[in-house]
Amino acid sequence: MAQDKPNIVLVFLDNFGWGEPGFNGGGIIRGAPTPRIDSLASEGLRLTNFNVEVQCTPSRSAIMTGRYAIRSGNSTVPLGEGIYGLVQWEVTMAEMLSDEGYATGMYGKWHLGRTEGRFPTDQGFDEWYGIPNTTDESAWTSLEGFAESGLPEPYAMDAVKGSTPKKARVYDLEYRPLIDRDLTDRAISFMKKNAGDGKPFFIYLPYTATHFPTMPHPDFKGESGKGPWGDLLMQIDAYVGELLDTIDNLGIADNTIVIFTADNGPELDGGTGETSITVENAVHGSAGPWRSSLFTGYEGALRVPFAMRWPDKIKAGRESDEIVHEMDLFPTFAKIAGGKVPDDRVIDGIDVSDLLLGKSDKSGRDGFVVYMGNEIFGVKWRDWKIHFKEQSGWNGVLREYTMPRVYNLINDPFERENVIFPHTWVLRKGLPQLEEHVGSLQKHPPIPSGAPDPYEPPY
Amino acid sequence: MAQDKPNIVLVFLDNFGWGEPGFNGGGIIRGAPTPRIDSLASEGLRLTNFNVEVQCTPSRSAIMTGRYAIRSGNSTVPLGEGIYGLVQWEVTMAEMLSDEGYATGMYGKWHLGRTEGRFPTDQGFDEWYGIPNTTDESAWTSLEGFAESGLPEPYAMDAVKGSTPKKARVYDLEYRPLIDRDLTDRAISFMKKNAGDGKPFFIYLPYTATHFPTMPHPDFKGESGKGPWGDLLMQIDAYVGELLDTIDNLGIADNTIVIFTADNGPELDGGTGETSITVENAVHGSAGPWRSSLFTGYEGALRVPFAMRWPDKIKAGRESDEIVHEMDLFPTFAKIAGGKVPDDRVIDGIDVSDLLLGKSDKSGRDGFVVYMGNEIFGVKWRDWKIHFKEQSGWNGVLREYTMPRVYNLINDPFERENVIFPHTWVLRKGLPQLEEHVGSLQKHPPIPSGAPDPYEPPY
Repeated sequence: MAQDKPNIVLVFLDNFGWGEPGFNGGGIIRGAPTPRIDSLASEGLRLTNFNVEVQCTPSRSAIMTGRYAIRSGNSTVPLGEGIYGLVQWEVTMAEMLSDEGYATGMYGKWHLGRTEGRFPTDQGFDEWYGIPNTTDESAWTSLEGFAESGLPEPYAMDAVKGSTPKKARVYDLEYRPLIDRDLTDRAISFMKKNAGDGKPFFIYLPYTATHFPTMPHPDFKGESGKGPWGDLLMQIDAYVGELLDTIDNLGIADNTIVIFTADNGPELDGGTGETSITVENAVHGSAGPWRSSLFTGYEGALRVPFAMRWPDKIKAGRESDEIVHEMDLFPTFAKIAGGKVPDDRVIDGIDVSDLLLGKSDKSGRDGFVVYMGNEIFGVKWRDWKIHFKEQSGWNGVLREYTMPRVYNLINDPFERENVIFPHTWVLRKGLPQLEEHVGSLQKHPPIPSGAPDPYEPPY
Repeated sequence: MAQDKPNIVLVFLDNFGWGEPGFNGGGIIRGAPTPRIDSLASEGLRLTNFNVEVQCTPSRSAIMTGRYAIRSGNSTVPLGEGIYGLVQWEVTMAEMLSDEGYATGMYGKWHLGRTEGRFPTDQGFDEWYGIPNTTDESAWTSLEGFAESGLPEPYAMDAVKGSTPKKARVYDLEYRPLIDRDLTDRAISFMKKNAGDGKPFFIYLPYTATHFPTMPHPDFKGESGKGPWGDLLMQIDAYVGELLDTIDNLGIADNTIVIFTADNGPELDGGTGETSITVENAVHGSAGPWRSSLFTGYEGALRVPFAMRWPDKIKAGRESDEIVHEMDLFPTFAKIAGGKVPDDRVIDGIDVSDLLLGKSDKSGRDGFVVYMGNEIFGVKWRDWKIHFKEQSGWNGVLREYTMPRVYNLINDPFERENVIFPHTWVLRKGLPQLEEHVGSLQKHPPIPSGAPDPYEPPY
């Protein structure tokens, strides 16, 4: 059953901070050891400077397309009733890998469209089980007022390419603790089936953990002795362990890439320290040494855990602090799988396979533009960060600076000290990156959010 | 040359935050990998909840005596010209180990007395080379006004038990980058000599790194490519590597305990984010996920890195989040070395050897009282923290609460969310610990700071 294209399993957690796994100094201090997750780092590669967009929808858009989310009209989490998500014209990594003969399965949260033509099975996945939107909605049916709103109940859906996704089960507080168990089972079945067929497979596994509400599966409730968060860490670790055991037992470990990462930084309270929420309901992730939460321009939003195992190609125990962005995975997977990167549009990601496989110490990426929604908050350039705008947390006040702030991330991981003087030279290196990006946006205008589908950019 | 008492090498860094070493998720994100330091954790035991007093002098008092610093009159860093430090009556771990036949050497910063009768060689060390006070003073001779003050130049000193310590070299900005090299050389010579003699040895190695000013040795300047902090991390790692290589080459590794830890949390600016200091001069350690700096009651002050290798007795790769306090090392070393814990005074430390050696999963310590100087800031009890007073950094404003604040350290490592309601039950578990301690202080009054020497408590 040998095949030259490696299988790819992309485990993608929700709002899971840099500081959670043991391999980044978390684990037991967060409530439970994470030996199975950590094994991906010790048996493979750990990236300490893997960056993402800072909200769910933009992050998922960027990883799927290899493009800044704003280009695809997905720069914010959708809050209203309008059409949103990826238009057909976009090429996802699932489509790219499908073209190379991969079986493609997705199990989990999409958040890139909830309307006909915008589901995962419209974007390159052979099958999908999961939720179209997000986990906030699991609480809706339990909340005062919702029943009278006339809004539909949130659903988990089941889909195969070529037919309309079916509503599978109401996504409510009864199902919220159970769904990641189902996602794991589906992923395992998919691996078994395709390994048996000798077909390379790609699994995109965007778990609903650790998005609020924090509700571990009954199998893990109370198991850590450290509260629900520790229980949930145990659960995730166990599920990752099941995936790894399956891969090992199928005899496909050497030729299977397993990546463990997340969509964006953790949930925190407003950061005021004055809230009266109880510990059980608190949103309480950890970005480790980095500042703040999702929905900010700080490192705590941008950097997420990243570990990657590929025994055939990656030497055990490597680590790198080179800047890599989730957009880089599309061209990198294309390189690895012999796939095609679209040449009729801007692709912001770069192939970083030489870094991942140890052929180079450099990623080739010096930085990137930091978006928060439609706003450009700043620019990261090597170990420096330039901020034009900041907000202290997801519900913080937006502050705008007439004079940008400059931070050094090695000396000052928590982004406290504005050192623009005397380090004005950093602007001379960081700003060209921004100018280039803005010039590219002017030349290739973004797809408007809510564009009708089918839609064929450019205008 | 077999001996039944293990050698003990206690490496004790200055103002070195939890987040610095690779084994706690630091290393490359701080400017350089720390493979040699990390090896102590991977080949031994990592404690993630090892606690200290939050200032230099109190921490050094507590580790030497096994007692809260306030009992010994050392609850604050001395700032004036008065007499301070350990009185003769105190029993240090060096005295205890001397009594068991150990050769005892100290290389580095004492900060527990600068007057006759209060030097390390008055407190159980056979020899000492280092500084009596602290590294702030290395800048004095370069500063405007100092020359006219009439104050003596700060000195590094050289001493052997039984004679008056000699001034060895002015401690100035020329010597500041060089001194830790000398400390390492002295420690290595001491190990070689005693391993040859077949005598068990105890080395207390309180390096001057990473206290400000941040000035790496010329051998390491520019080597990390990430600035002085990264260079200094490389230097520390290399020096620890030299110690380990010496131990290995002497063939005494199996029976030598090596501990790597620090006196208290990192230096940071005031935390206001509004300072205009330059990166080069900034004080810029990292406590990892924990809040704040030295001189506070937050976890960033209290938790320091801790790794311990003892191949004969400790299974490789263990880790524990049990609460341990630096005061516990005295009774623990006594247990391991067959030494005597004084029974004529209060010893606050407990023997935690069963935890360290893997005979128990529990440390036996549920918590401790958190001092900041003479003030009781709070109480730590298991995963909870009760704060009566807080200040945001070493130069922050002291805030006092009429209603204590309660934090959960697993859910909320950054101590943001006061959850006293509904968690008032935590007070019922944490406060008895405080009441017991205060009762003990009333029964056994602390030695007054600046007490004349010789001095024989109790009154």
